[in-house]
Amino acid sequence: MAGSCSSATMAKFNVGSVLVTGSNRGIGLGLVKRFLELPNPPEWIFATTRELDGSQSKEVMELALKHPNLVVLQLDVTDPNSIKAAMQRVEEHVKGHGLNLLINNAGILWVTTMENENIETMETVYLTNTVGPLLVSQEFLPLLKKAAQQSTQTGLSCSKAAIVNMSSVAGSIKVVPVWEFEQIPSYRCSKAALNMITRCQSLEYKDYGILCTSIHPGWVKTRMGTEMALQTVKQTTQEILKLLSTFSEKENGSFVGWDGQIYPW
Amino acid sequence: MAGSCSSATMAKFNVGSVLVTGSNRGIGLGLVKRFLELPNPPEWIFATTRELDGSQSKEVMELALKHPNLVVLQLDVTDPNSIKAAMQRVEEHVKGHGLNLLINNAGILWVTTMENENIETMETVYLTNTVGPLLVSQEFLPLLKKAAQQSTQTGLSCSKAAIVNMSSVAGSIKVVPVWEFEQIPSYRCSKAALNMITRCQSLEYKDYGILCTSIHPGWVKTRMGTEMALQTVKQTTQEILKLLSTFSEKENGSFVGWDGQIYPW
Repeated sequence: MAGSCSSATMAKFNVGSVLVTGSNRGIGLGLVKRFLELPNPPEWIFATTRELDGSQSKEVMELALKHPNLVVLQLDVTDPNSIKAAMQRVEEHVKGHGLNLLINNAGILWVTTMENENIETMETVYLTNTVGPLLVSQEFLPLLKKAAQQSTQTGLSCSKAAIVNMSSVAGSIKVVPVWEFEQIPSYRCSKAALNMITRCQSLEYKDYGILCTSIHPGWVKTRMGTEMALQTVKQTTQEILKLLSTFSEKENGSFVGWDGQIYPW
Repeated sequence: MAGSCSSATMAKFNVGSVLVTGSNRGIGLGLVKRFLELPNPPEWIFATTRELDGSQSKEVMELALKHPNLVVLQLDVTDPNSIKAAMQRVEEHVKGHGLNLLINNAGILWVTTMENENIETMETVYLTNTVGPLLVSQEFLPLLKKAAQQSTQTGLSCSKAAIVNMSSVAGSIKVVPVWEFEQIPSYRCSKAALNMITRCQSLEYKDYGILCTSIHPGWVKTRMGTEMALQTVKQTTQEILKLLSTFSEKENGSFVGWDGQIYPW
């Protein structure tokens, strides 16, 4: 079962390079920290953030001063030019090597209802949460393919080549959880559609040796999840890294929770 | 089981008023014709089309000349002002009565692949196929509520008050059918998200007495479905009308095929 994992598995989890979008705070920043703490940390960790300047990115910038393998890059997932520029910077660093793991983590949530949802809310959330991960994956595909080709590993894994899309059980069409608590149709639609992107990627990229999966991170104490949430960022990101270390063909095109549970679409 | 239906059921299928978007051709036009052919045709059939002028709407305009209960209205599902204007025209006709059945049928398909999909294709298809049905339903909600309040029927049904969203099994995240035949990620994402809209509507509008469901019309010989398709418009729309006549609470928030089969999300 996904999620069952020993410390031996984690010791063998050897990701050469990873890129995490939206990593100036929340789950993205937590993932970056967990990669830095690995027994075998990646040679390159690319932490991207929409805006480099300002206090928003202070913590990840300070981390990068201490860790030469951490590179902070500007990347707005809704801006093709910005994605292209980030890709060129990554290429300069990996020097002929590929990118092993792309984590499409950047996302937004607008608190909306069935009554006040409108074109602007629907389109803005979709652009960041659904179209963004598609565009970023398209741009980094050559580097992911290269990583898969250069790998000596058989089968699919996150240390070979993978796209992980940060989804949410809120996007489960079957479950539609916590409706009474918050409706957020634009967010739910964007995550359901992101799950469809994961499925399409898993069908199209499998033959290149790239694993593609959706993750539900749980309800986490972040700016999005609020202080009422049940899990801490540290707890959640630890579990997600354990999970990633166990992924194989079985998880290609699936929707896995931080706790290893498989969620229905 | 949904879809099992006798001619006696059809004879009792008594929809006071129905609005079908995108009814200048294809399945929309077919549905309008089938409603006109019912033993008890609706008092009002509102057939909406994005553009009234031009040869595109000739057939439905000619039908309206022969049938005084058929009203052709301009309605662009992506334009809130156009939706509002159509709603006002409908109100003038129904004179204090509600609207029993809203069929969100208008939709587009752009033939895209994982490689050439971009912001424009993703957003345009989403706006028409997902945001459009949400906006149209929001605008007509007061008339649907009124129809439910005025009805003497218990439970939910399409002749009392209902929103039917024309989806597609192409939007099934679990199935992702005919991938090798066409990829169309923008279309698949838009229909998966439309299914989420159906689920949200079914939770929110149930207490008003409004039934909400997604329909998969099959693969139909239309401009979208092409001549290679397996079903004729006549056949498909006959089956869909039979299906609508059988819908009750059981189908609220579900994804039903033209053949009565329940599809996975």
